[in-house]
Amino acid sequence: MDADLRSNLFQQAKDWVMEAGANIKAKIDDPLTINTKSNAKDLVTHMDQETERFFQTKIKKKYPDHFLLSEEGYGDNLSNLDGIVWIIDPIDGTMNFVQQKRNFAISVGIYLDGIGEIGIIYNVMDDVLYHAIRGEGAFKDDVRLPKLKESLTLEESMIGLNHNWLCRNRLVKEDTMQQLVRKVRGTRTYGSAALEFAYVAEGIMDGYLTMGLAPWDVAAGIVIVNEVGGVTTTIDGQSVNMLTTNPIITCNSEIHSQVIVEYIKKGRK
Amino acid sequence: MDADLRSNLFQQAKDWVMEAGANIKAKIDDPLTINTKSNAKDLVTHMDQETERFFQTKIKKKYPDHFLLSEEGYGDNLSNLDGIVWIIDPIDGTMNFVQQKRNFAISVGIYLDGIGEIGIIYNVMDDVLYHAIRGEGAFKDDVRLPKLKESLTLEESMIGLNHNWLCRNRLVKEDTMQQLVRKVRGTRTYGSAALEFAYVAEGIMDGYLTMGLAPWDVAAGIVIVNEVGGVTTTIDGQSVNMLTTNPIITCNSEIHSQVIVEYIKKGRK
Repeated sequence: MDADLRSNLFQQAKDWVMEAGANIKAKIDDPLTINTKSNAKDLVTHMDQETERFFQTKIKKKYPDHFLLSEEGYGDNLSNLDGIVWIIDPIDGTMNFVQQKRNFAISVGIYLDGIGEIGIIYNVMDDVLYHAIRGEGAFKDDVRLPKLKESLTLEESMIGLNHNWLCRNRLVKEDTMQQLVRKVRGTRTYGSAALEFAYVAEGIMDGYLTMGLAPWDVAAGIVIVNEVGGVTTTIDGQSVNMLTTNPIITCNSEIHSQVIVEYIKKGRK
Repeated sequence: MDADLRSNLFQQAKDWVMEAGANIKAKIDDPLTINTKSNAKDLVTHMDQETERFFQTKIKKKYPDHFLLSEEGYGDNLSNLDGIVWIIDPIDGTMNFVQQKRNFAISVGIYLDGIGEIGIIYNVMDDVLYHAIRGEGAFKDDVRLPKLKESLTLEESMIGLNHNWLCRNRLVKEDTMQQLVRKVRGTRTYGSAALEFAYVAEGIMDGYLTMGLAPWDVAAGIVIVNEVGGVTTTIDGQSVNMLTTNPIITCNSEIHSQVIVEYIKKGRK
């Protein structure tokens, strides 16, 4: 992507993210309409929908030739990633949004022909913006994030993972994951994939494993983690398919293959 | 405790907490001396020790007849809780302090003859102070925290628990805890017991289970959770012994007995 276009697109995307964030913040104490999607824990509110609609309207008006891949149904039905595709989760961490009224994020990735060019993750209530432009580094607000640690063992690592990895699941035998939990220094669960990617980029977690992430959960995060030298793959070490749901690991590259080979592969179903 | 004494003590304790917090904040980017205690995951830094020493010096000078129960060895060796006892964790969430440079707290409980009179939990880097004085309500900064929800089911609950509950452990069969994880709406792990108590008091989590908490991890939290109508017991429903380590549940009283009877008791070893 041309550097000028990329820079203009980033500025526009950031402006819209801030505008959408301000709207969510202004309405944070309003009554919520809450529905469930695939299961009782898969929540959606009218604010997810309103926010996605905001992006869809803005993008389609200003960039009619761009595509939109997004969570709540206002996006395009894409069979490939040709062209410029905005991949958006209007509220990542909806359960936190509902229950905590914080700890959620707007996540916007912009891809050209399948390559992540721009990633923006905005922690709305904390007013913290993570962003990266491919090849130009990652930032937390205006501060450039340093490259991830070059020397790191699993014993020193803090890993983000949902508790369901330790329950019977369709992906990996739970006792293998229990061994991983015992091996690492600590484990955390924050409930927003976008923020957990941002924390990996920031180096406050060394990795994050997740069972079934949709493109909009990871599109921005992948770009940001890339820019600090981190790596994101499926849990089998394959590249992430942005048109489908993937079980994903994003982490410091120092521990990537060890987690996959010594833990996930051994328990993989 | 006399209301005037309690109010003076609270003001003094709060001032010291803010002073200790400012000191930690000022030194947050300094090199750390990190040691381990009972195991490789049980960290202590010179800042934990320096902060505890600060409280010990202040308390012993101003209140020579008060006692101190604290984590890093500067406290008194108590066999009972007679009199006024300060129960202090200078840095709760040391692993977060080391790894994240945020998400840790100073925790100060003040007890009279075993009764919690004052609780203070200070999220240092976010500059958020939770406090409660017995009978006078709980506060987040200057905002009074409302009573916890009066109607709540487990299916709607968000619970904090460490991943070790789902690994083989000496307390509860892990498959029973896996059933609890599947039952509730969501689970979180933040890595600071004091902050997790504060989040329960704030209602952004509905409960928090922990395997082996020392008095200094919970002393302040219990007072704060009490003031919003929450309940804290051992995982067997017994009252907490403040002179020893306890596996503890703190939660909205609506779900307390259900978690104990339908989950913990069934899997209790």
